[in-house]
Amino acid sequence: TTTHRIALIPGDGIGNEVIPAARRVLDTVAARHGLGFTYETFDWSCERYADLGAMMPDDGLDQLRGHDAILLGAVGYPGVPDHVSLWGLLIPIRRGFQQYVNLRPIRVFEGVPSPLRDAGPGDVDLVVVRENVEGEYGEIGGRLGRGLPEEMAVQEAVFTRKGVTRVLDYAFALAERRGGRLTSATKSNGIIHTMPFWDELVAERAAAHPEVAWDQEHIDALAAKFVLDPRRFDVVVASNLFGDILSDLAAAVAGSIGIAPAANLNPERDFPSMFEPVHGSAPDIAGRGIANPLGAIWSAAMMLDHLGHPEAATHVTDAIATVLAKTPVRTPDLGGTATTEE
Amino acid sequence: TTTHRIALIPGDGIGNEVIPAARRVLDTVAARHGLGFTYETFDWSCERYADLGAMMPDDGLDQLRGHDAILLGAVGYPGVPDHVSLWGLLIPIRRGFQQYVNLRPIRVFEGVPSPLRDAGPGDVDLVVVRENVEGEYGEIGGRLGRGLPEEMAVQEAVFTRKGVTRVLDYAFALAERRGGRLTSATKSNGIIHTMPFWDELVAERAAAHPEVAWDQEHIDALAAKFVLDPRRFDVVVASNLFGDILSDLAAAVAGSIGIAPAANLNPERDFPSMFEPVHGSAPDIAGRGIANPLGAIWSAAMMLDHLGHPEAATHVTDAIATVLAKTPVRTPDLGGTATTEE
Ligand SMILES: CC(C)[C@H](C(=O)O)[C@@H](O)C(=O)O
Ligand SMILES: CC(C)[C@H](C(=O)O)[C@@H](O)C(=O)O
Repeated sequence: TTTHRIALIPGDGIGNEVIPAARRVLDTVAARHGLGFTYETFDWSCERYADLGAMMPDDGLDQLRGHDAILLGAVGYPGVPDHVSLWGLLIPIRRGFQQYVNLRPIRVFEGVPSPLRDAGPGDVDLVVVRENVEGEYGEIGGRLGRGLPEEMAVQEAVFTRKGVTRVLDYAFALAERRGGRLTSATKSNGIIHTMPFWDELVAERAAAHPEVAWDQEHIDALAAKFVLDPRRFDVVVASNLFGDILSDLAAAVAGSIGIAPAANLNPERDFPSMFEPVHGSAPDIAGRGIANPLGAIWSAAMMLDHLGHPEAATHVTDAIATVLAKTPVRTPDLGGTATTEE
Repeated sequence: TTTHRIALIPGDGIGNEVIPAARRVLDTVAARHGLGFTYETFDWSCERYADLGAMMPDDGLDQLRGHDAILLGAVGYPGVPDHVSLWGLLIPIRRGFQQYVNLRPIRVFEGVPSPLRDAGPGDVDLVVVRENVEGEYGEIGGRLGRGLPEEMAVQEAVFTRKGVTRVLDYAFALAERRGGRLTSATKSNGIIHTMPFWDELVAERAAAHPEVAWDQEHIDALAAKFVLDPRRFDVVVASNLFGDILSDLAAAVAGSIGIAPAANLNPERDFPSMFEPVHGSAPDIAGRGIANPLGAIWSAAMMLDHLGHPEAATHVTDAIATVLAKTPVRTPDLGGTATTEE
């Protein structure tokens, strides 16, 4: 039996409901596939911030370092500004552990209607590959002249050849294993100097992956095409901010924000990778036991795959598809009455 | 008769087809409403760039300055990189003339089905108010170490209290005149230092407009909600980049990229304002006489409104609605067979 050490960070709100559900699925899968998991649970959260003034301890990353993977619920709660909670927990892990690929698969499942008139099951099956540690998000920024009429705030977006190239290579390789098509999100027509650079690197990496058919779209037109013709996409590679927007949008197009998973990958395995549902802490329904656990469960499946157990991963995603297609069991966000436990 | 001096810049591709159509509509309206227009046409375009090495002459803004308004078709054509064409024509006009409000109304029309299952005529009726001269787009950026492994590109986003406040005030005042609701697009949970500043200014201006019910959404969640529940929105105010993305997305949700108009406004009227359809130059159909002229015609209606002729403007938008609802005349992008002329 391989034993994997998993760090659980339920975090805030419904994170505390969906992570236990995902853990039960992992334990069931472990029994069937001869795997072993040991868990360590961390109470890092807005509650901790309220008590102790910090989302996580100073040596938080060191505490996580020895684990094989991290399963995270959700971060953020009313009363704590989002930039405090997120900048204090989720983002430092992504960055500190060089989880530079954020992988977000999106599918229309049988039994979960898309809000689009003509997107049926199987029509939408794409992956957003989001650059996850540099780009539009970053520490270089701040304010001048607080409170004065001349006040301003600045933010520096930084794109490096190394940082862009590695995520592009990941995306092109993924396209080779999937449908062989890749779309790059850009905005090189607006005055954004980083974007012509991004485009050049895409063309450069495309030349190294000649089997992949690729194109590029400006982010505004691409967002529109996600609604007008989502079938055409296979792998979509995007910067940190654009990937964030596109992956939520695609999940909405698939009718399934509550189902969408994410993997924050350090492909070199120098550090643990982190798996988390795309949905947030949902304070409006937290504590009622009705949160949709499928996003966390699918995220756990991505973790199984990353840990070297692709059959176990497929077992879980097949189970998700079967429950949605063949049973009426679904949580209120999908129009049902089931509880998280059910 | 009031006579207005209009600068026409057809630009590239289908710009040369839709601007003449809009001009014919303006002339018809002028006759019926006792208005007068004189036109000066400028050949600034990618063709000019190919001939003369510049999208417009050095004194381009001076040539436009004496006009009451500018009607622009589209900018950009294959062979000229987008950042060359756009940075050389569209964007300098927006910035040079302090057209700091980019106004983009979106409606679902009877006769134009939305791609969403349950968005019917009248369900979606919103306006995106986009900050148009600062923010994520800007001159401060560039590259270091061209070609080296260490190469990087940076872009500085700059948000000023003055720049944000004035567009917020425009948006809140517009919300007062419309449905009384405003949504602000933010991303203060990602590490983007300009966004908590944006949020603070929104809260500040909201206090000055107590009749408006407002909320804010992170751009990723907001993009998802544009698809899941577009009915809930009235006025949406957003930064330069976010407004760009949201307005294309909303036009797609309404099924009508070819119809969507935009006004680039200098509300103080220190400089001419500019009106342009949201669609681009569409090289794939250019020259075939099948471009949808409604985006340009609706943009001309916004120009009429700006020039002080709201009844004439309504006359035009009513005509658009009537043609779509009561006749089969529509261009191929809307599933019809009509030509631009028809
Ligand atoms: C062409 C481009 C520079 C422009 C923009 O991003 O402003 C366009 O997308 C628009 O929305 O008018
Ligand atoms: C919570 C926020 C910082 C985060 C992001 O923008 O990265 C979230 O939207 C996500 O997509 O994981």
